[in-house]
Amino acid sequence: MSATRIRELIVTPIAFGDPPLLNSNGVHEPLALRIVLQLVLEDGTVGLGESPGGTARLERLHAAAKVVAGMDVFDTTAVSAAIDAALLPAVPSSHERGWTTSAVEVACLDAQGRLLGRPVSDLLGGKVRDAVPFAAYLFYKWAGHPALDGRAAIRDDWGEALDPAGIVEQARLMQERHGFRSFKLKGGVFPPDEEIAAMRALAEAFPGQPLRLDPNAAWTVETSKYVARELDGVLEYLEDPTQGIGGMAEVAEDSPMPLATNMCVIAWEHLKPAVEQDAIQVLLTDHHYWGGLRRTRELAAVCKAFGLALSMHSNSHLGISLAAMTHVAAAIPNIGHSCDTHYPWNSADDVIVPGVLELRDGEVKVPTGPGLGVELDHDRLERLHRRYVDSGMRSRDDTGYMRRFQPEYELRLPRW
Amino acid sequence: MSATRIRELIVTPIAFGDPPLLNSNGVHEPLALRIVLQLVLEDGTVGLGESPGGTARLERLHAAAKVVAGMDVFDTTAVSAAIDAALLPAVPSSHERGWTTSAVEVACLDAQGRLLGRPVSDLLGGKVRDAVPFAAYLFYKWAGHPALDGRAAIRDDWGEALDPAGIVEQARLMQERHGFRSFKLKGGVFPPDEEIAAMRALAEAFPGQPLRLDPNAAWTVETSKYVARELDGVLEYLEDPTQGIGGMAEVAEDSPMPLATNMCVIAWEHLKPAVEQDAIQVLLTDHHYWGGLRRTRELAAVCKAFGLALSMHSNSHLGISLAAMTHVAAAIPNIGHSCDTHYPWNSADDVIVPGVLELRDGEVKVPTGPGLGVELDHDRLERLHRRYVDSGMRSRDDTGYMRRFQPEYELRLPRW
Repeated sequence: MSATRIRELIVTPIAFGDPPLLNSNGVHEPLALRIVLQLVLEDGTVGLGESPGGTARLERLHAAAKVVAGMDVFDTTAVSAAIDAALLPAVPSSHERGWTTSAVEVACLDAQGRLLGRPVSDLLGGKVRDAVPFAAYLFYKWAGHPALDGRAAIRDDWGEALDPAGIVEQARLMQERHGFRSFKLKGGVFPPDEEIAAMRALAEAFPGQPLRLDPNAAWTVETSKYVARELDGVLEYLEDPTQGIGGMAEVAEDSPMPLATNMCVIAWEHLKPAVEQDAIQVLLTDHHYWGGLRRTRELAAVCKAFGLALSMHSNSHLGISLAAMTHVAAAIPNIGHSCDTHYPWNSADDVIVPGVLELRDGEVKVPTGPGLGVELDHDRLERLHRRYVDSGMRSRDDTGYMRRFQPEYELRLPRW
Repeated sequence: MSATRIRELIVTPIAFGDPPLLNSNGVHEPLALRIVLQLVLEDGTVGLGESPGGTARLERLHAAAKVVAGMDVFDTTAVSAAIDAALLPAVPSSHERGWTTSAVEVACLDAQGRLLGRPVSDLLGGKVRDAVPFAAYLFYKWAGHPALDGRAAIRDDWGEALDPAGIVEQARLMQERHGFRSFKLKGGVFPPDEEIAAMRALAEAFPGQPLRLDPNAAWTVETSKYVARELDGVLEYLEDPTQGIGGMAEVAEDSPMPLATNMCVIAWEHLKPAVEQDAIQVLLTDHHYWGGLRRTRELAAVCKAFGLALSMHSNSHLGISLAAMTHVAAAIPNIGHSCDTHYPWNSADDVIVPGVLELRDGEVKVPTGPGLGVELDHDRLERLHRRYVDSGMRSRDDTGYMRRFQPEYELRLPRW
């Protein structure tokens, strides 16, 4: 049996603490779900991967585990194809299948790097920067999770942010703690004029530092155009103001700033219509659904060839994902904007041994150890898995959680 | 000093025997030029590369050699960027700069593979096929190079092919010697009706086997449309019937078969206009000018996303190039046609140790040794370099060579 064969893929669902971050769907629950992958080779080498959580993704990763056992870890293209084929026809969306293939690809590359004694960035053509700049990811938020069902309230040290002053204060904290030099606000929470005021307050407080706003498609085309006009000169780009490639194209027609997306162009087949309609000017890559790290480099090449700028999307994540994001961003010449990361909101509950990944001066230094360069903390993993089991939480439900406190709350897209 | 640093890039121009193959520019001279690269690392590991020859390319590779010394061999993206920057502004064409960066990238990947003990295909995501199908590359040709300037005539064992019967006979020989199951004719040599007749004769002699015709843009748009109509049902694709993206788009409008190119889409900035104008349906990749092997995989991703099929272009080449072509074609899922290769015309004069690369059953098995999996034959290299020096030949001149025998011959594009 070759040492580079995959012996097994261990799939561990976990739950970790998350602050009450507001968005167009409601509010983050006290726990966020994630799945940790350990890809074990015949020689005992282990490659790590991290996927968003939830029952559907967990089941698909279990299906993937059956398929990849016995395959060679260097055959990453074939591994992805085999998983993709196994998920069809039950999972018709290529975007949905991408979550599964991507997580496994990262674990394969981590294992390859460990076997070869090289960092993952080297397997992607080598890093073109030693550190990757990230943006502060600002959220409207409550001071803490309210008491509920006998559970005590959960405070955090970020404080409340429900108006422009609160957002500026949060941005100051982010800058103080991590040195960020650019800022993104998750919008779509309050009426557009309030969010416009927040962006103007940020522009005044942080002159010359890039700003962006992401309402998660909470606006109509008309509202999007209004906000774009109002924020002319304030934003480096406006992210997903409205739904769909068609809607974005309408907004783009007279938007004074570039439009970005991680919502309407999320699979390879969306690229052609988006380019044809000139719907977006910035693509927010995410290796978690575009097929992994090599495919993200390929996506970057598509963007370069068709004149799209690149930035990077983030969901709530832990250190394995941050390491992967950092390696791939370091290897892509045309990442032209600082990347998004939720890491400051969740890093206290990380599954990796601390010390390698630090958000300092608004950057993460590219790990130089073999593979992703991070090590799993097995005690932490066990604890976070136990929390997953005990919580009974099996999917994310920002809307349902919001309704526990505001029963009249309704999910509406567009809302304004 | 790190073992993975590049100590030096040794650049060796060579000349090797080439039969009198006819094309729209004239006829191949008795010698073809090529350049062999040896990228030597601090630990003595040597990576091989192969580039088309000629003084301009030789000088650019010497310029590249100065730039890459001291860089890390795993930093292939940075190595390419450094070479590219060094060639600017003297070489404004990104296509021309691509010849240089590509050759060095292959040498870097060969060296990486040798260091890591893995085949280059593994560094590209792993092979998705164990053998790569190639097409028989048919040429109108003379029986041999005529005697000239006191030099005796040079015969070869392929015979003359100047009409449909000669082409069919050459195809039979190609099939007998190498087992090819698809055929490409280099056209643009005789009036279109003669080449149409040749393709029909091939279709009759090899029923059901894919055929293509490549006149190297020798035709007007009108002639191209005429030939396309006449060969409806005969060709899998028609290659570069006419010049330019605009001309190809006009032909494509009512061509019954897909159009392919390696002439009008030869740099990354050509992709967008070609797609916008729907000028081509098949892209003939060539790692020698698209930036190397990783960039060729990225190009394949662009083609997939924008609905272009993929095949592979070839110039006269030797075994280092064939190994690289085979590794990258093996790693690309969406190579949908057999690849072109001149190898049967030139393999007798190869610079590599024989035995690894064999064109059998129309395929080349992907080398499984470290790196490209081929070894340089240093005696051969010395002999071919000596032939380069002695020949005094410094650039390819198919037109000038033709005029030695047919003084009235004129280069005209389009000719018909």
